[in-house]
Amino acid sequence: MTRHYLDHASAAPLRPVALEAMVPYLRDHPADPGRLHAEGRLTRVGLETAREQVGALIGARPREVVFTSGGTEAANAAVHGAIARGVERARHAHVVLAAIEHSCVRESAERSAALAGGSVTVVGCDAEGVVDPAALAAALRPDTVLVALQVANHEVGSIQPVTEAVLAVREAAERCGAEPLVLADAASAVGHIPVDLGALGVDLAVVSAHKFGGPKGAGAMFVRRGLRIPPLVLGGAQERARRAGLEDVPAMVGFGAAAAEVAGTLGAEAARNAAQCDRIAADAITLAGVLRAGPTDAARRLPHLVCLTVEGVEAEPILLALDQRGIAVHSGSACSSEMLEPSPVLLAMGADADRSLRVSVGWNTTEEDAAAFGPAFADALSTLRALRA
Amino acid sequence: MTRHYLDHASAAPLRPVALEAMVPYLRDHPADPGRLHAEGRLTRVGLETAREQVGALIGARPREVVFTSGGTEAANAAVHGAIARGVERARHAHVVLAAIEHSCVRESAERSAALAGGSVTVVGCDAEGVVDPAALAAALRPDTVLVALQVANHEVGSIQPVTEAVLAVREAAERCGAEPLVLADAASAVGHIPVDLGALGVDLAVVSAHKFGGPKGAGAMFVRRGLRIPPLVLGGAQERARRAGLEDVPAMVGFGAAAAEVAGTLGAEAARNAAQCDRIAADAITLAGVLRAGPTDAARRLPHLVCLTVEGVEAEPILLALDQRGIAVHSGSACSSEMLEPSPVLLAMGADADRSLRVSVGWNTTEEDAAAFGPAFADALSTLRALRA
Repeated sequence: MTRHYLDHASAAPLRPVALEAMVPYLRDHPADPGRLHAEGRLTRVGLETAREQVGALIGARPREVVFTSGGTEAANAAVHGAIARGVERARHAHVVLAAIEHSCVRESAERSAALAGGSVTVVGCDAEGVVDPAALAAALRPDTVLVALQVANHEVGSIQPVTEAVLAVREAAERCGAEPLVLADAASAVGHIPVDLGALGVDLAVVSAHKFGGPKGAGAMFVRRGLRIPPLVLGGAQERARRAGLEDVPAMVGFGAAAAEVAGTLGAEAARNAAQCDRIAADAITLAGVLRAGPTDAARRLPHLVCLTVEGVEAEPILLALDQRGIAVHSGSACSSEMLEPSPVLLAMGADADRSLRVSVGWNTTEEDAAAFGPAFADALSTLRALRA
Repeated sequence: MTRHYLDHASAAPLRPVALEAMVPYLRDHPADPGRLHAEGRLTRVGLETAREQVGALIGARPREVVFTSGGTEAANAAVHGAIARGVERARHAHVVLAAIEHSCVRESAERSAALAGGSVTVVGCDAEGVVDPAALAAALRPDTVLVALQVANHEVGSIQPVTEAVLAVREAAERCGAEPLVLADAASAVGHIPVDLGALGVDLAVVSAHKFGGPKGAGAMFVRRGLRIPPLVLGGAQERARRAGLEDVPAMVGFGAAAAEVAGTLGAEAARNAAQCDRIAADAITLAGVLRAGPTDAARRLPHLVCLTVEGVEAEPILLALDQRGIAVHSGSACSSEMLEPSPVLLAMGADADRSLRVSVGWNTTEEDAAAFGPAFADALSTLRALRA
């Protein structure tokens, strides 16, 4: 049976250009890029080239790019660093978060704030999964050290008004005498929509390579020029003393190569992916009790994913039935699968959190893949509903 | 000019068997191993096979192996977790460390202890870089939550009496009513000498893949069966909720393959490496003012590295002069290169910390590589000394 992998938003296949860039560093160039010898200087060049390529994709100077082992570590490091900085400066540890944030931002904020005697204020979203900048700003207090808002949501694809939110937060901060850092989790957005972190005016951001065809084990924390935050991982001067541990040069070289490719193809890929998702959604919503969640305006959602809510059948049996029919998709968040928790994002939107599917496409998705979803989904759903009846 | 890479202890070349195991997972198997679909189940099998292979090498059950992005993250996670556990249980945060510990253990212990209002007691070593178990035990207090001791040192190669230290610490803990966890940093030892974490009786340990020919970006934290410590990286249920973030399946598969290979070849590789190091050291110490640091008893040191102290010439010019002669080696610790700090390990031993070289070999080092060091070193040293005179 032909398989159709429609779970790019969980982990996208590696772009051939990234694998090709990685192999020489895996096979022939072992050295620690912190070393003075010729072998070390060679891997240093590979690493710094990758930093330029990633910076160019996200509107960052190379020095603003701190390589990490992935988006989750980057988010933990940014949150830890921002709160530790606030505690060092003024013993402040209040955090404002959007309800749709990924659990890596939410859980690390709750931990660090609690350790420092602070707290977290969660700001809701509308029924399309969009956060109101004014509501975010209104949650600020004089002791707020961090405000976090995604660039785009990982479950329903809603693009957030980050520019407006940064302006509103800066104004509110001035009024109440707070000095918060603004963190943008761009992990789901980068490589799928244009992201210019410099223009957005955020202090910190999170990027993940595997979300757009870079390797697993690669991510970046954006740290605005001039900003210094205490590192999460200690024990070495790597990454300008902002992240200790031997750099995973092959992974970062692959990350850079994927970033360089997508910088040139993003527009075309996004248009193709959006059409594929529209096809998937159009086929799905002809079925009774199936709706597409997230913004109805295509310009306000990520082009490469579709969140479907399904009435009357649990998500897990649907996933398994689709799998038997050759289709790989996911339910809810990328990170709660082992726990099968209800999705906090869908809960915040007022949707039924137990019954959502995420179908996601990417750089190598074909029209056949997109076309295969509808019939398989119809068949799976009617079979499951017949079993229940 | 033929190059001779004698810096395995900084970063060893990837074993071909590891690269071969990784490529299918890089190229063909993208899925998140937490997913229910066929693609996810396939990467789950790869990941769990790797966990068994790593566990088999280090005397651990697969469930005791928590994959991380490397030794540095594993050390930070173990230290953070042990101290957080101590604070949760009894508001205690005193740590006992050997002076020879890697900076990832020392710095993360200092940070976490200070945040919790605790402190760190540092226990010295002898002139060969060996820690006295009785001295470690004597530093225990009723509020000690963590005792850390390397299995073998990363700069001078001294193998530590971990079994004796665990016994002494457990006895002292009972006497003073403390409940410390014992952490063994095995990063420099695993793959070079037999390490059986179960038999050592430690609670936590650190392993790094690239130190013995596994990939960069791969490491493991050993967590003794039944022990629960709060995670460092939050935001997902991966690794049985002990380390969040999408697993880097290709890297872990390479880690597993390298572990499986070295489990069979360790004895032969160690014997060959020890002979190569003896050759390197014998050639070096014929030169005036050059000594081999660390244990004189070969059974008490790592087989694959030589630490040389050099009178009257700084380390950096020697490294550069050797590099010009085709030889790649390192000075001092693997992690202070960007800062060029004096080595705390050599300081603790009473050696001259500014003037040490670390020459290290591994699985693909040839007799020609080992033979090339002596003449190049003699030439470099006489040239530098002539310049100074």
